[in-house]
Amino acid sequence: MSYADWIAVDWGTTHLRAWAMADDGRVLAAASSDAGMGSLTRDGFEPALLALAEGWLAPGRATLALACGMVGSRQGWVEAPYRPVPCVPLEPGGFASAPCGDGRLTVRVIPGIKQLSPADVMRGEETQIAGFLASEPEFDGVLCLPGTHNKWVRISAGEIVSFQTFMTGEMFALLSEHSVLRHSVGGEGWDEHAFTLALDDLLSRPERLAARLFSLRAEALLSGLAPATARARLSGALIGAELAAARPYWLGQSIAVIGASGIGGAYAAALARQGAAPRVVEGDRITLAGLAAAHALLQETAR
Amino acid sequence: MSYADWIAVDWGTTHLRAWAMADDGRVLAAASSDAGMGSLTRDGFEPALLALAEGWLAPGRATLALACGMVGSRQGWVEAPYRPVPCVPLEPGGFASAPCGDGRLTVRVIPGIKQLSPADVMRGEETQIAGFLASEPEFDGVLCLPGTHNKWVRISAGEIVSFQTFMTGEMFALLSEHSVLRHSVGGEGWDEHAFTLALDDLLSRPERLAARLFSLRAEALLSGLAPATARARLSGALIGAELAAARPYWLGQSIAVIGASGIGGAYAAALARQGAAPRVVEGDRITLAGLAAAHALLQETAR
Repeated sequence: MSYADWIAVDWGTTHLRAWAMADDGRVLAAASSDAGMGSLTRDGFEPALLALAEGWLAPGRATLALACGMVGSRQGWVEAPYRPVPCVPLEPGGFASAPCGDGRLTVRVIPGIKQLSPADVMRGEETQIAGFLASEPEFDGVLCLPGTHNKWVRISAGEIVSFQTFMTGEMFALLSEHSVLRHSVGGEGWDEHAFTLALDDLLSRPERLAARLFSLRAEALLSGLAPATARARLSGALIGAELAAARPYWLGQSIAVIGASGIGGAYAAALARQGAAPRVVEGDRITLAGLAAAHALLQETAR
Repeated sequence: MSYADWIAVDWGTTHLRAWAMADDGRVLAAASSDAGMGSLTRDGFEPALLALAEGWLAPGRATLALACGMVGSRQGWVEAPYRPVPCVPLEPGGFASAPCGDGRLTVRVIPGIKQLSPADVMRGEETQIAGFLASEPEFDGVLCLPGTHNKWVRISAGEIVSFQTFMTGEMFALLSEHSVLRHSVGGEGWDEHAFTLALDDLLSRPERLAARLFSLRAEALLSGLAPATARARLSGALIGAELAAARPYWLGQSIAVIGASGIGGAYAAALARQGAAPRVVEGDRITLAGLAAAHALLQETAR
């Protein structure tokens, strides 16, 4: 293969993904590992990246690796301090330089974004947002980015205006894998009707969440509630409670949900039931598109 | 020491406690271990009990051990099927006999109680309720039993009328020990003012729960939120959301909270702020009092 012109890096808490990129935008190669930020000490980052990308590095010159995600946190390779809203998602002046012993590599890390009141932070999503805006620069409305820490983000005039994070994805994982409910929601399958009923119930009466959870366990014990139904109800209840709390974000807004498959589709369907008309945007390559946008900005700045 | 006339056993998922009892009500000895139901297979129960109580058994006769808790679940020593509400907390005819190889021991297990709609179950709390009613047989009102799975129980004319379980305690443990919030709420100390503010906030706007959680992490990162404050806010938010959902149970009722120290006191203080006038009842010996009440009922039945 030919050497990379630059390297795109998506480096989260539990994963590391890298792409060898050509200046014309082609992806020359891709690689990934489980060397996430959470499993590395500070001197472990450079070897973890070289383990994936060493074969992409031309001898005799420094190739730029441009990274987003938790790699820029205080526990990461280098701390890239949060930038405050309102702001554009990417600002090359804020990209941090990571210390690097190998002369064939230069590493820049994209900072996250903070909001002081109500307090909130993101790291990695700013790059996804940039990837979305690269193809829809005129978008004015609200982005929903489902994930472990689901984000609702107000976008206007190319800027992130405000945002709010919900721990819905992490709550679902904790409750379904580590709580007493794990006995009741395991296995495969899905009950769409049960999901919808729980969603509507919690959207109209979000205070019921705390009361709804244990009933899944009790119904499993008393009437053999099917695990697929219990899991769908748990998901519906948590998402319903989130949508109730996030109503100021989505009500009457133009909405785009990132991630067509799985949970993104569930959010979109739930919003549609509330009379919203969300678009669903393919999410698989959106981080890479954001890293490409960041690279283009760096090149403009260098000119 | 003298031999036990009978043995009282409180056997939960994670603990085993036993008391050597005299027929006149005196406690002759006490012992405990971590041989909870969750760590035992079916043939492990008898050895686990003998490990604590063998020295209390008179030779040549069978001593009764009377047990409550998860020991009577499907995964326990013997399944003691749930009894439906409305019902008195203890009904000797429903006590299950556990298989026992040692001729010096006879084991009876107190069944839990179920409610079909809304679906709910308890195991162990029925014995605590019996212990409470033993000293207050005329109580008419609502019992609050804080714990991993907090229970609100309507009591009238000596019967359990209805009840509802909240996973508040387990949610607090999961979020503070296993979620991203664990970085923000660790250590010692407590911030009563922060607890109260979060409690009031969630009591009046329970739908905010999903939105309030991640802000603890964000404020810790952005403004150095003290762990004691974050932990108190997490607790206040979860209890506030529970009290909002449990309002039909406590509003305008005579309330007794079991457990004077720690979380019982927090529930009582929170209820008092809402204009309720809860009594707080010492909880340390309430399970033993319930087991003694069960033993007395068995003796009456045998006469």
